[in-house]
Amino acid sequence: MVLQINPQSIASRSAPGLARMLEPIPQGRLSCRDLLEHHLARAASPDAAQAHLRLFTASARAQADALDAQRGRGQALPPLAGLVLGVKDLFDVAGQPATGGSVVLDGRSSALSGWPAARTADAGAVARLRAAGAVLIGHHNCTEFAFSGVGQNPHHGTPTNPVTALLDATPRIAGGSTSGGAQALALGACMTALGSDTGGSIRIPAALCGLVGYKSTQSLVPRDGCIPLSDTLDTACAMTPDVDGAIRVHEVLAARRVDRTAARLAGSRLALPQDLMLDGLEAPVARALESALTRLSAAGARIESLRCPLLPDGAALQGAFSLAAVEAHAWHRHRLAHDAARYDPRVLTRLLRGAGVSADDYLDLCRARRAWIDALQSALSGFDAALSPTVPLLAPPSAPLLSDDDVFHRTNAALLRNPSLVNLFDGCAISLPCQAPGEMPVGLMLWAGAGRDDALLGLALDAEAALAGHGG
Amino acid sequence: MVLQINPQSIASRSAPGLARMLEPIPQGRLSCRDLLEHHLARAASPDAAQAHLRLFTASARAQADALDAQRGRGQALPPLAGLVLGVKDLFDVAGQPATGGSVVLDGRSSALSGWPAARTADAGAVARLRAAGAVLIGHHNCTEFAFSGVGQNPHHGTPTNPVTALLDATPRIAGGSTSGGAQALALGACMTALGSDTGGSIRIPAALCGLVGYKSTQSLVPRDGCIPLSDTLDTACAMTPDVDGAIRVHEVLAARRVDRTAARLAGSRLALPQDLMLDGLEAPVARALESALTRLSAAGARIESLRCPLLPDGAALQGAFSLAAVEAHAWHRHRLAHDAARYDPRVLTRLLRGAGVSADDYLDLCRARRAWIDALQSALSGFDAALSPTVPLLAPPSAPLLSDDDVFHRTNAALLRNPSLVNLFDGCAISLPCQAPGEMPVGLMLWAGAGRDDALLGLALDAEAALAGHGG
Repeated sequence: MVLQINPQSIASRSAPGLARMLEPIPQGRLSCRDLLEHHLARAASPDAAQAHLRLFTASARAQADALDAQRGRGQALPPLAGLVLGVKDLFDVAGQPATGGSVVLDGRSSALSGWPAARTADAGAVARLRAAGAVLIGHHNCTEFAFSGVGQNPHHGTPTNPVTALLDATPRIAGGSTSGGAQALALGACMTALGSDTGGSIRIPAALCGLVGYKSTQSLVPRDGCIPLSDTLDTACAMTPDVDGAIRVHEVLAARRVDRTAARLAGSRLALPQDLMLDGLEAPVARALESALTRLSAAGARIESLRCPLLPDGAALQGAFSLAAVEAHAWHRHRLAHDAARYDPRVLTRLLRGAGVSADDYLDLCRARRAWIDALQSALSGFDAALSPTVPLLAPPSAPLLSDDDVFHRTNAALLRNPSLVNLFDGCAISLPCQAPGEMPVGLMLWAGAGRDDALLGLALDAEAALAGHGG
Repeated sequence: MVLQINPQSIASRSAPGLARMLEPIPQGRLSCRDLLEHHLARAASPDAAQAHLRLFTASARAQADALDAQRGRGQALPPLAGLVLGVKDLFDVAGQPATGGSVVLDGRSSALSGWPAARTADAGAVARLRAAGAVLIGHHNCTEFAFSGVGQNPHHGTPTNPVTALLDATPRIAGGSTSGGAQALALGACMTALGSDTGGSIRIPAALCGLVGYKSTQSLVPRDGCIPLSDTLDTACAMTPDVDGAIRVHEVLAARRVDRTAARLAGSRLALPQDLMLDGLEAPVARALESALTRLSAAGARIESLRCPLLPDGAALQGAFSLAAVEAHAWHRHRLAHDAARYDPRVLTRLLRGAGVSADDYLDLCRARRAWIDALQSALSGFDAALSPTVPLLAPPSAPLLSDDDVFHRTNAALLRNPSLVNLFDGCAISLPCQAPGEMPVGLMLWAGAGRDDALLGLALDAEAALAGHGG
């Protein structure tokens, strides 16, 4: 009776959508409590051991029971009633401040930080989802302070990829930084994973795990109560089973209605940038991409190759230092002075790349970024959106990544390369699964400039339909 | 037949509004060319010698003639047809790049700057006003790079105050940084002065010259083609004869409609913050303020004293360095290395206060500012707007300001104190004349948080009516 997503349904491209899973609740055919218990059972499975840093079992049951009581009294339910939500450990939950997947925010050193020690309220994004009926199951594991695309976590363990585990004997990463969220969602331990995307942290794990990851335009969703990585680039957003679910969750997160008809795939004009974003594709990624383009064209999209030297220009902008490194260093530096040894050494390395930068140089980069945004907007004008592979790789094997720093940094750069350009662009993007059933997950990224979210989502709905049953 | 603003009508509180001056144009009772010629005549008067850095006489006549021809053909005219517009020398005008009231942007050193040497298009704000029928009369003088509230300019002369000249033998400043715009508007050499407001540069001269100065929420108006002072704080906005005119011009600048009924004065709840903003008022300012509060109360406003220690907190935030100094230094530093001797020494002093700041410290200030904004928004919640004197002083005498650096820096700080807190707040504000007829101009500032522009403007319309005929 209870529909749940699982690795098998993802691998066979037959996972249920969010709306179908929620549908029986208002109809009274399923209680929120039962739906929650099915997800709690998955969350308790050994496969999900690295997904959660803490489960909110008691309060989740109370939330579910309260919603069921509300329905029992004949009261209308909120739009996402019963949605089992996992929250990346960057977002405060009432009674449970986030710890950033770290061990340094344990209260011992809180006096050193501008981050208030005693936070007792839901983060803004969490509060909106809770008010819409989401049941908060727990805090998800992630890269410490969300500062890599790999999803490693030496403190709490690194979530593995439950979908590739079905297809290949090699343990592979789920991707990050929202690694616990991707693992939990793919395992059916939640129905939506709230996370953040600073350079791809929602889209990368979505691509590697066969999920939908939508990074909205940054300004649309509040970030209060979320531990910052980069104030300039951080976006609060979510992974969902499907595009319709991404829209429903976004409408709550952004407190706005999406116009699903703002663009349709048939008759659309889509850019396929040739520079940088198509470099170094692994063969299965290239094959899945080619096949996806064929299907989108068959559905009426006009796909045009676009020379776009602005993309490598954008990547070069952050050659000396990155916005994220400088902004994260400013936030962490007092704690780093006392507590550096307790950070993940790889995160520490990345944070320290932001040390010693002058305000002059930082502001030059901000200004160069804005000029680059303007230029890229001009280059993409006339297109409804752009298409790129979300990442050039299949989910990489875990072992070499965890043991070898060079492999880690090289792989991390490869994973972040495409999605991070959209954050630099202040744009919006969505990663859709585009592999054939039974093949390793590959993400197709549709992306566009700031504020073009509705058109992007309308195209994504049609694209998802065009890509369904792929290869069949 | 031609209605024009002039110092006498300002001093007697009987200056015509913008709509009344424009009204005869679409009715065919006055040509755009005639209206322009009247303003060109004023611009050519010796009183206006410091107001303009350059007049666009030929192109303005061509614009006016084209509008008249359009009317002659029976075509509808754009909403601001015939409005004689002066533009602060920070905004590019097609064929005439801005020079920032400086002599360093004369092309000789352009290779040193990120600012493109050859800019041939209208700034975004200028383009919108031109498309709405504004006739561009010239570039107004200002403080070099807009970096003081005094309006001094050692390169091009310092505009004096034409209104106080009628009331008092002492030459006084018009205020700045939009000093040429205030002088030109008060003299009837234009009907609206486009400028910028980073810490009060529109509101200060409006207050000192008896004009209306409206600083919108920053994000509403484009700033492309405007030489930056502080990307965080700069707002493109205008001085007008009246509030209705401010609304009409803003609607074009922001490409949006203002809901004039978003708030009404009768029944409104207005905060009168007691801390800092009421300190050190000159007696005539205190008297005019008190009398204005009485009139607003009589019109139905509920005015409540508010203890607001956040205001001195906000002023203290920028104790070590200011956002504007750091951001301006980043923009100017390459040129400063070669050309410092050609800057106004007082502007140079202020720019150099932004040197040597680390990105860490700059970002800490940005973060502290955001927390302060949140706190002040909470403190003002429940109020429709706040009320403060725009500046604590009457227009100060010019001579000591120009000759004595200490007087300059002290006066500049006093002029910027109140209005700059609204920029720090990312808010919106409007300065209205509130003195009695025949008295020295005093500005009353209504202010509110970001995005509350419509309520602010609705209140300002009613407040202007309540303050009209003041003291009669």
